Amino acid sequence: MAQWKEQLKIIAETINKVIANDRFPEKIEPAVLRQAVRAYPMLGGKRLRPALVMWACGLFGGKPETVLPAAAAVEIYHNWTLVHDDIIDCDDFRRGTPTTHISIAASAETEYGATGKTASKFGTDFAILAGDLQQSWSVDMLCKLQDNGYCAGTVLYLIRKMQEELGIDLISGEACDVAFEIRKDEIPEHEVRKMISGKTGALFSYCVQTGAILAKPELDFEHPDVKAIAEFAECLALAFQLRDDWLGIFGEAEKFGKPIGSDFQEGKPTLLYLAAIKNGSAEQQQKLRSLLRLEEYTPEIVEEIRALLRETGAEQIILDEIDSCSKRAVKLLSRFEKNAYRDYLEELTGALTGRNV
Amino acid sequence: MAQWKEQLKIIAETINKVIANDRFPEKIEPAVLRQAVRAYPMLGGKRLRPALVMWACGLFGGKPETVLPAAAAVEIYHNWTLVHDDIIDCDDFRRGTPTTHISIAASAETEYGATGKTASKFGTDFAILAGDLQQSWSVDMLCKLQDNGYCAGTVLYLIRKMQEELGIDLISGEACDVAFEIRKDEIPEHEVRKMISGKTGALFSYCVQTGAILAKPELDFEHPDVKAIAEFAECLALAFQLRDDWLGIFGEAEKFGKPIGSDFQEGKPTLLYLAAIKNGSAEQQQKLRSLLRLEEYTPEIVEEIRALLRETGAEQIILDEIDSCSKRAVKLLSRFEKNAYRDYLEELTGALTGRNV
Repeated sequence: MAQWKEQLKIIAETINKVIANDRFPEKIEPAVLRQAVRAYPMLGGKRLRPALVMWACGLFGGKPETVLPAAAAVEIYHNWTLVHDDIIDCDDFRRGTPTTHISIAASAETEYGATGKTASKFGTDFAILAGDLQQSWSVDMLCKLQDNGYCAGTVLYLIRKMQEELGIDLISGEACDVAFEIRKDEIPEHEVRKMISGKTGALFSYCVQTGAILAKPELDFEHPDVKAIAEFAECLALAFQLRDDWLGIFGEAEKFGKPIGSDFQEGKPTLLYLAAIKNGSAEQQQKLRSLLRLEEYTPEIVEEIRALLRETGAEQIILDEIDSCSKRAVKLLSRFEKNAYRDYLEELTGALTGRNV
Repeated sequence: MAQWKEQLKIIAETINKVIANDRFPEKIEPAVLRQAVRAYPMLGGKRLRPALVMWACGLFGGKPETVLPAAAAVEIYHNWTLVHDDIIDCDDFRRGTPTTHISIAASAETEYGATGKTASKFGTDFAILAGDLQQSWSVDMLCKLQDNGYCAGTVLYLIRKMQEELGIDLISGEACDVAFEIRKDEIPEHEVRKMISGKTGALFSYCVQTGAILAKPELDFEHPDVKAIAEFAECLALAFQLRDDWLGIFGEAEKFGKPIGSDFQEGKPTLLYLAAIKNGSAEQQQKLRSLLRLEEYTPEIVEEIRALLRETGAEQIILDEIDSCSKRAVKLLSRFEKNAYRDYLEELTGALTGRNV
């Protein structure tokens, strides 16, 4: 296994333990809510965001093991946004298991004998509260950096940035994405880019900025090195999102985790779709628009979409942008002295932006 | 006007300004969400919780004007819980104006041309996100104590308590209240008391504890004086809730703000109802249960409920408990040296627990 992958696995195991052993959820009542608050954060997953905190810390010369509370905090933060997103998107499954509101609705049946609409409303209500508690938990987890010897001023700085920058950018990104769905106009590309930057980029940035500050508390988010690593994370997030858009059409359903064509079905203005509209002939544009929001996406329809995205040059445009994001990310890393953590971040960039990984 | 009322009015005006001038919401996108985040916190109201922070600070010998960020923070915190509660309770109005999700649903129509279920789903989705942002805003506001010269350690301590104690107790209280509605059993009195203590008491306590710590940062929540003022706030909250239960049956609709009998209509296990069940004959118990969850509460039915609550002695039990809470609260204040702030807190106790105020 590649070095970075091995390291990521170790980080995932450590974060699992930190989250499982943390006492924050213990006093939550009733038990159904307590379990729901723990569920997503303990579901595992790649733990990419904690790795970004720890490797950025290592890159800036700090000791990654001292920043574990921050690494766990960003993971829990990520999870509260997922819980609320899943309610908003009416998603029933995440990573193959029922989403929080669906799983609580099932508990309402076993626990309280509620059924139908009553159980489903209860599931949503409790999932709202579970996400609220997870947001509190993430702030609390960040506070625990103080127990690892970090001075209160540094921790407070990171908490404030979590609210003023991460919180506003991420939640605004999610809100714009929700608004896209009901808007009647075709969403301009710059708005889609801003949404991606908020919804995915903001947390990636916050992770590496936090790692950097915890390695060198004398820096702030405005320091050129911290700005550079934040831009690295933004590039990574954009490449990651573009690759996701590409996989959503050109990938395989099993690897992608969702049905191929679901972005078209939901009428999502992906950058891939917008590139095809921008570069297509009037006829191609019309055809593409007619393929949005269909009931069903048969293999034939998916092939038709693929052909249109190829013929308009949109596929190549997106693949080229993934490449250039990836190159820019690696270039941004090159200003830092080479060490193991820089290698991990570089290898991660290659792997995340590779088209078939 | 009584001294405390005049002071409360000044505090309300000051808090209105602090919230209106705070720059946190400025960068929120889209505008509909930004307005929703500001709406409840700027709606005004008594600003009782900010007053508790400021008067407790004054009681402990501090300067109330230096704790304004904390006073604004608890008010914003209170508001995020209201926004999410209103979604959960499907309430359309609060203080005579449309609730956040209803108001955003209307914006969805004017702003994006959405109607019906689409507009209403959008209203709920954005209201979830608005509450999320308000929770972030309240933490951010607390961080701003540092700008008033408070040391980072003190601020961090208060942030941590906000998550670990206030957050868990308050959200658990709300969750238990939601669970009461779908439970098939009659809710035991001790669970109702715990729910009230979480849903109302926890924030009242946090307000006075915060005021105390900001006056004397060398104290912590375990110090006997801080525990005493926290118990004062718990008594106040319980008396406040009991009075609310009483007004919900024996009050007048205009003053109460909701239709008389609505607790019975919603099947709420109020302490007033439970006292009647506990003390009533088998026949009275049966009659009381049959009066829950009716379609309509005519003046005749309300009179029937009133008579039952009187005859079982439940009304007197509740009025006596309001009195004893109020006396206990005043006694707890008496351990502190008399000053203007102690007078305000004492007068507030009398007014809040008075039956017709």
